[in-house]
Amino acid sequence: MASSEDIVLSAVLNLLSAFAFLVAFAILRLQPINDRVYFSKWYLKGIRASPRSSGTFVKKIVNLDCRAYIRFLNWMPAALRMPEPELIDHAGLDSAVYIRIYLLGLKIFVPLALLSFAVLVPVNWSGKSLEQTEGLTFSTIDKLSISNVPDASKKFWAHLVMAYVVTFWTCYILYKEYNIITTMRLQFLASENRRPDQFTVLVRNVPPDPDESVSEHVEHFFCVNHPDHYLTHQVVYNANNLAKLVEKKKSYKNWLTYYQTKYERNPKIKPKTKTGVWGLWGKTVDAIDYYTTEIEKLSKEETIEREKVMSDPKAIVPAAFVSFKSRWGAAVCAQTQQSSNPTIWLTQWAPEPRDVYWNNLSIPFVELNVRKLLMTVAFFFLTFFFMIPIAFVQSLASIDGIENKLPVLRPLIQMEVVKSFIQGVLPGIVLKIFLVLLPMILMAMSKIEGYTSLSSLDRRSATKYHFFILVNVFLGSIITGAAFEQLQRFVDEPPSEIPKTVGVAMPLKATFFITYIMVDGWAGIAAEILRLVPFVMFHLKNTFLVKTDQDREQATDPGSLNFSVSEPRIQLYFLLGLVYSVVTPILLPFIIVFFAFSYMVFRHQIINVYDQKYESGASFWPDVHRRILTGLVISQLLLLGLLSTKNIAKSTPVMIALPVLTIWFHIFCKGRYESAFVKFPLQDAMVKDTLERATEPTLNLKAYLKDAYVHPVFKGVELDRPSAVDDEENNPLVPTKRSRRSSKSHSEEGV
Amino acid sequence: MASSEDIVLSAVLNLLSAFAFLVAFAILRLQPINDRVYFSKWYLKGIRASPRSSGTFVKKIVNLDCRAYIRFLNWMPAALRMPEPELIDHAGLDSAVYIRIYLLGLKIFVPLALLSFAVLVPVNWSGKSLEQTEGLTFSTIDKLSISNVPDASKKFWAHLVMAYVVTFWTCYILYKEYNIITTMRLQFLASENRRPDQFTVLVRNVPPDPDESVSEHVEHFFCVNHPDHYLTHQVVYNANNLAKLVEKKKSYKNWLTYYQTKYERNPKIKPKTKTGVWGLWGKTVDAIDYYTTEIEKLSKEETIEREKVMSDPKAIVPAAFVSFKSRWGAAVCAQTQQSSNPTIWLTQWAPEPRDVYWNNLSIPFVELNVRKLLMTVAFFFLTFFFMIPIAFVQSLASIDGIENKLPVLRPLIQMEVVKSFIQGVLPGIVLKIFLVLLPMILMAMSKIEGYTSLSSLDRRSATKYHFFILVNVFLGSIITGAAFEQLQRFVDEPPSEIPKTVGVAMPLKATFFITYIMVDGWAGIAAEILRLVPFVMFHLKNTFLVKTDQDREQATDPGSLNFSVSEPRIQLYFLLGLVYSVVTPILLPFIIVFFAFSYMVFRHQIINVYDQKYESGASFWPDVHRRILTGLVISQLLLLGLLSTKNIAKSTPVMIALPVLTIWFHIFCKGRYESAFVKFPLQDAMVKDTLERATEPTLNLKAYLKDAYVHPVFKGVELDRPSAVDDEENNPLVPTKRSRRSSKSHSEEGV
Repeated sequence: MASSEDIVLSAVLNLLSAFAFLVAFAILRLQPINDRVYFSKWYLKGIRASPRSSGTFVKKIVNLDCRAYIRFLNWMPAALRMPEPELIDHAGLDSAVYIRIYLLGLKIFVPLALLSFAVLVPVNWSGKSLEQTEGLTFSTIDKLSISNVPDASKKFWAHLVMAYVVTFWTCYILYKEYNIITTMRLQFLASENRRPDQFTVLVRNVPPDPDESVSEHVEHFFCVNHPDHYLTHQVVYNANNLAKLVEKKKSYKNWLTYYQTKYERNPKIKPKTKTGVWGLWGKTVDAIDYYTTEIEKLSKEETIEREKVMSDPKAIVPAAFVSFKSRWGAAVCAQTQQSSNPTIWLTQWAPEPRDVYWNNLSIPFVELNVRKLLMTVAFFFLTFFFMIPIAFVQSLASIDGIENKLPVLRPLIQMEVVKSFIQGVLPGIVLKIFLVLLPMILMAMSKIEGYTSLSSLDRRSATKYHFFILVNVFLGSIITGAAFEQLQRFVDEPPSEIPKTVGVAMPLKATFFITYIMVDGWAGIAAEILRLVPFVMFHLKNTFLVKTDQDREQATDPGSLNFSVSEPRIQLYFLLGLVYSVVTPILLPFIIVFFAFSYMVFRHQIINVYDQKYESGASFWPDVHRRILTGLVISQLLLLGLLSTKNIAKSTPVMIALPVLTIWFHIFCKGRYESAFVKFPLQDAMVKDTLERATEPTLNLKAYLKDAYVHPVFKGVELDRPSAVDDEENNPLVPTKRSRRSSKSHSEEGV
Repeated sequence: MASSEDIVLSAVLNLLSAFAFLVAFAILRLQPINDRVYFSKWYLKGIRASPRSSGTFVKKIVNLDCRAYIRFLNWMPAALRMPEPELIDHAGLDSAVYIRIYLLGLKIFVPLALLSFAVLVPVNWSGKSLEQTEGLTFSTIDKLSISNVPDASKKFWAHLVMAYVVTFWTCYILYKEYNIITTMRLQFLASENRRPDQFTVLVRNVPPDPDESVSEHVEHFFCVNHPDHYLTHQVVYNANNLAKLVEKKKSYKNWLTYYQTKYERNPKIKPKTKTGVWGLWGKTVDAIDYYTTEIEKLSKEETIEREKVMSDPKAIVPAAFVSFKSRWGAAVCAQTQQSSNPTIWLTQWAPEPRDVYWNNLSIPFVELNVRKLLMTVAFFFLTFFFMIPIAFVQSLASIDGIENKLPVLRPLIQMEVVKSFIQGVLPGIVLKIFLVLLPMILMAMSKIEGYTSLSSLDRRSATKYHFFILVNVFLGSIITGAAFEQLQRFVDEPPSEIPKTVGVAMPLKATFFITYIMVDGWAGIAAEILRLVPFVMFHLKNTFLVKTDQDREQATDPGSLNFSVSEPRIQLYFLLGLVYSVVTPILLPFIIVFFAFSYMVFRHQIINVYDQKYESGASFWPDVHRRILTGLVISQLLLLGLLSTKNIAKSTPVMIALPVLTIWFHIFCKGRYESAFVKFPLQDAMVKDTLERATEPTLNLKAYLKDAYVHPVFKGVELDRPSAVDDEENNPLVPTKRSRRSSKSHSEEGV
């Protein structure tokens, strides 16, 4: 067990590394040459110009102004200065709400920490149970935890009351926050400018028709069933191959530029390359010639493929983006069922154009279900078989494990500093390495499951990742980490005993999690702000590929909030905070530092660096809310298990009410707020429609929507579509007198 | 343990009692005086006239035609003769689909029984494990069950394969059936005549407005947000008090008629009554005078209350029935969210007028949530505290229990017949008595939960009742019934051991469940067809209250299918069949007899007797489907538990795939079919609208809908409003040609 000295050493180490990152960041960001790495958002917005345009050459690369270095931490107050409405304008609602998660952590845990320190720490300290048990080694931290209170003590009532306080306070803050976020979302949606997705519905599983093309079939169906509201539609081309070709061509062009630059700088040596994979083996050829011919070949292929996609009716997938004359019409279509067969004509709100995940638009209903089953089973195995390597490596990484398996190292390990290092830092790092590999796998699995927008893919991956972290990091660390004491007992015990087993092991793992918070949380966030990978990549590209300012624009990778990875990690800290707030309150300050530091760093990043890939209007909030409540229920169950071993009369019935109330609170909040995140009320749609009709009576909506939902590879290219196909004006389809009259009156109104 | 002789005796007893019921029924139904009890549906339809109108007096009461008695079982083929489409016309889709549940039971279990008898019974019989164990008493039935196969035998693979066959066959049949029912429902909805609920949406939680009445507020809101579709609306009066007064007056009128008849028959004695509760105590008064004055008083009160309700704005609850110009408009409004606050302006399809549960239309959102929480907790306690009396009474009802507690009875018990009776019949009856009390409590709980239609109340109560039966009848009988062997062990064991404990106890309880099927199933169904309670009530009323033919009409209680009680009971038989199909196949024939017999009886009843209270278009089917799958999963888990004690290598991984697949199948079916039962597709709405517009261009929909959703106490009363209320005959709307024709053809067939 790590002693409190280990913790102090680890804290110092991590603080030092975090500080080193911060200093490095403070210096690097002041250099003009790094400007595009650390202020990419401003470049994208066109507000900040390249510093090369003025001053001497040296000044363009290195900042020689000493005063700037003195104020090297002044980005922190600067990050906090921008008011929230401006932040939403500047970075979008997704980002603004995302950093509110950190703020939420502070709101929940600061008061709880104060209360815990005022009440529970003295109670635990005065327990003196550990001191009275002979032959037990324990640290100062253990003396401040619930382990120090003797069995059947009346003092446990303080913990029970505290559990109630934690539950009610968390729920209260969550309720208030849900309220605020809902209001923000509704205001955001109401104040938004006209956007194509407000008028558009994604229709999937268009049934095949022997007599009509997909486009005609869609048009006829919606003309008949939404006669007053249907405006136009956009078919979806299966351009996945084409997109691959475009991507490949771009990469070859980069290589060509690279070799050309090389050749220009050193005209004596003709650069060579090999034709095999990665240029590592195969025939050696002249690089510039090779890439030039390859690019020409690809260009031809691309043209052929492009023509094929445009002309072949089979390249049109059975899905379409259908647009309506009003937001009201789109809201109606998105929320209703079209056909009596619920597996065809599936409608849903169209994602933003840049949020569409084009590959998944054409999966049939049965296949979708089979894919989901397979991925569920695969995810189950992934989650539960990852346990084995973690347990194995962690057992190696303990002092005893190393001494047993590698007796050679014994003298080294006996040194105090090394020993502290191994015990304090190593288990956390082992865990961390495992976690880095995972998000890509989970995202690939979500893609196979068939979600149609990037935002839903992100949300879905986050759900998987959260479950994985819960099982493997949280439970895995508590149970398997303590495997030497508990594994045997645990195998023989049934699931109902899990709360007890975990609950009892929990206080013992507090020091491990404190270390983990420092390594993963503190140092990780500090590394985030340094942006090492984009930093290196930018300078590599800048050196070898950049010729024009436009190239430099493209070399900048502003990055974005990676919701699917970072949100589940925050949830781990919520979980740890809630679990240990009653058991080992000493852990709370570490969590609070994490939340405060993260809040500042991410606020800085979304203001200065990140460029969001899409805007979903904070539609992830219900997930965040649900996961925090999951953490709360877990904390209650574990405390229930822990207390049930302490011989306190009636603790179980008192504690069992808490999860019941929490789950009810979840259902209540779901009913009260969730629909604001998945539906679009008709009242609001009508208000916006009416307003728009009054302010812009001459708007040509059809022209506005014409190419909104075109696959990105066609963007900018002339789409020689047969124009008559979706020209509704010339089409005498619309069947009934009434609807034709009203559609005329609409068009007269100029919608 | 009951021996096979006990079973045979019990079977004979139950067959005899069932036969006695049937003979009684066969005789009673032929007496003209009972005609209204056994053919009430035909009277309600106006096709069958009172037999009093012709023939001699005796002939009107007793059937003297001997030939009729010879064919006393000929109602059975008659019941099966009516083809299904006609049945739907005659009795409604709800009833027609309800009896298909029994048919589904036959479809599932007949092939499974044949297969089990061909494969598993020989395998079990040749096991010879029981004979080789010394000191064990066992019956012939046990020799045919899985208990007879020795541990670790290869023969268990037959059972594993059979478990797969059961799962796939059940799922296949369920899938086909869901398909059929969905088609039937869609056809039914499509072919339906115009009905008010097709155009109407129930709007609840209308927010208060300081400047407008509820009616004005509703009108303005829908005029603005559904401008092209809104037609009219009907506010809801809080007429619960008035309804109570009307009810009370009716009961007093009945008593008055009773005493008047009594006085007429015996004019010498003036009838007296007492003023207290039930006329049992209090001051003795002249009965006729007393009731006459009471009725006068009530009439005055009723008039005052009626005026108050009509004039007081506070008597209008914040809910309304909003009608639209087209089915399309109503479908849109019912499926979309109206306001950005999801707790106000809640819309849902209006139930049929006779299906509305008026008391629950005005419950605020938060109160609704609190009610649901309280009822969930209450239901939990109800379910799990009922266990105690059952266990206690059943322990008394065993031979050992009685001998120990009442040694006086020992000589009686020693008699073979008595012993067999106690062991074979008593436990079933004990259970049955408990079950009779329950449905009313559950229905009251569902009403408190705030459902707004009778059909949803029925469905909700059925869900509760099903869970109750599962825990208390099924698990309770298996575990507590075997409590003397297992209770102690069970208390010390955790939930994960439940499949094992129950699985092991399961084969031992087969004989008990066979008895139960005979008592509850066979004899219960035979009692159902006799209709003892309505029979007695009718003759009492006929003697004391009936003066005119209209009175006699009212005295007839046709009854109806009580979905909330009978469906969960069928589910118990499905569960037993699925659980024992692999373990003790000998149980299957008993279940098959139950399903076949029930099918015939209920088909007869819905043709000749029952009058359905509402028509929900088989919207209960998803529940039925889900519960059968629940039973399937339970059977798989129990078999898993049982096999895991038999030392068969790899049985657990083979078995665990089954529940996973079953749950996936459930999710698949839910996605594929469920929306047909909860939503109304726009395409279908549009088709019906277009058709109607073409065939009846002059239809005055507003007049048609005017009073469709008026509280029943206002029905028939002059509602200071134009009449034309719901007189279907005068209304040129109802194109009942087809249904009237087919019901005529029925009576010609003489069913």
